[in-house]
Amino acid sequence: MKEKIEIVKKQFENDKFAKSLGIFLDELTEHTIRMHMQLRDDMFNWFDRPHGGVIYSLADAAFSVLGNNNNNLAVALDCSITYHASPDPGTILIVEGESLSSTRRTASYLFKVYMEKKQLRTLVATMKSVSYRTGKKIDQDIE
Amino acid sequence: MKEKIEIVKKQFENDKFAKSLGIFLDELTEHTIRMHMQLRDDMFNWFDRPHGGVIYSLADAAFSVLGNNNNNLAVALDCSITYHASPDPGTILIVEGESLSSTRRTASYLFKVYMEKKQLRTLVATMKSVSYRTGKKIDQDIE
Amino acid sequence: MKEKIEIVKKQFENDKFAKSLGIFLDELTEHTIRMHMQLRDDMFNWFDRPHGGVIYSLADAAFSVLGNNNNNLAVALDCSITYHASPDPGTILIVEGESLSSTRRTASYLFKVYMEKKQLRTLVATMKSVSYRTGKKIDQDIE
Amino acid sequence: MKEKIEIVKKQFENDKFAKSLGIFLDELTEHTIRMHMQLRDDMFNWFDRPHGGVIYSLADAAFSVLGNNNNNLAVALDCSITYHASPDPGTILIVEGESLSSTRRTASYLFKVYMEKKQLRTLVATMKSVSYRTGKKIDQDIE
Repeated sequence: MKEKIEIVKKQFENDKFAKSLGIFLDELTEHTIRMHMQLRDDMFNWFDRPHGGVIYSLADAAFSVLGNNNNNLAVALDCSITYHASPDPGTILIVEGESLSSTRRTASYLFKVYMEKKQLRTLVATMKSVSYRTGKKIDQDIE
Repeated sequence: MKEKIEIVKKQFENDKFAKSLGIFLDELTEHTIRMHMQLRDDMFNWFDRPHGGVIYSLADAAFSVLGNNNNNLAVALDCSITYHASPDPGTILIVEGESLSSTRRTASYLFKVYMEKKQLRTLVATMKSVSYRTGKKIDQDIE
Repeated sequence: MKEKIEIVKKQFENDKFAKSLGIFLDELTEHTIRMHMQLRDDMFNWFDRPHGGVIYSLADAAFSVLGNNNNNLAVALDCSITYHASPDPGTILIVEGESLSSTRRTASYLFKVYMEKKQLRTLVATMKSVSYRTGKKIDQDIE
Repeated sequence: MKEKIEIVKKQFENDKFAKSLGIFLDELTEHTIRMHMQLRDDMFNWFDRPHGGVIYSLADAAFSVLGNNNNNLAVALDCSITYHASPDPGTILIVEGESLSSTRRTASYLFKVYMEKKQLRTLVATMKSVSYRTGKKIDQDIE
């Protein structure tokens, strides 16, 4: 398993959009993930608050990595995100994800996005996601 | 109504994140919206395909504008997006949205994202969204 | 195609739960479906309104039939339902569904539930659903 | 708080649809709920498996009770359910729910449905729900 996890960890370094948002991968295991990012002013919506698309993109980046940690290329089928609170500009956003279930061809996950401010966490969003596993290897050289 | 629509149209010009993605507002009415954007290479995920967060952000930008077109500040509660196909790099993405229902305090919408290539449209994603209307005016000077 | 549609039409006659709710299949094509049911007092929630589970079950019955109209056994992965209005007790509920997209292994659909009263329709709920196609035949004798 | 919890507990005894499904309320606190039901043959779909609408209805019953445990009438806005596994006929279904967040006017919850068989639990479905709090009291006589 560890070898497979390394594949997607390395792949994620090539995620140009995640890079432009400053998303960092902190931890990845077989069933969990943690990432974080620093909110910036260029991520504001027209109401000068962090854009919903930015919050979603952090959770989606976690989904794409956790959902591909077993050398089986997965594609997103459906993501449902509930917004609990608007994060404060300039704070750190953290996403923590876990796998809920998986079959040979499908898998589902739950992600929670938190704002961290003065070492206190506030729940910002919860995302539930479903993916389809294509059965194609990400790295052909590994079983 | 027309006056209220102009408020959010003007506000959207200040959406920094939408601007960084090159999202354009093409049409806004009382119950419908159309926006578009040009996919760029810096929007790729680690698999060199347009990032799910980019597709979502286009739909979410449309949601934020259509949901605020009546001078009643609305916040997103829940968005559920189904991905139908991965759009080709470099193509144009179009989102078309419509209102499904609204009450004094809540509203719901449906958005479809298409890839346009050689004047042919392919359905890329469908998003269903729910918002809460705060009752606060966006522009205090207009009724 | 017509032959495959007949398979699930016949199967649906054995849906015990749908039968207990009085759900009728009105029309099924390759890409659309229409069903209806009569709301009864034993379908009330504790607030004496038609139960959310009843409204969902009508849409879900339509999903199970439309999603299985090609002799390829499909299982539900995810359903997201938005409630627009509470239907009046004793009225007729109608669901109309359409396919949004399909690949060899997955498919997605949109369903709208209406209340019909004095020949007027009111939108009650919208459901977006995703299924996984197992590849197993429902009727082994048909191609 | 205890007094408010008793209001909805008592109300739930009048939920005719939940009663017809044999849904029992086991535990209700300010932020959590547990219910269960026994799967019966009249809850089958056309594939002789417990109907998706039945599984949903159990989760939805839990949502309606947990979401109304503070004497503030709430209505369902959106429910998104992911199905992980088909429960075995004749087993016990258990739903456990928790509140995720709440504001004065909106609230969100997470529900997990398990099949219990020989004292082993299997995750059957996960539902994420959003409600709108009308501000109307359920029991006028209690603050």
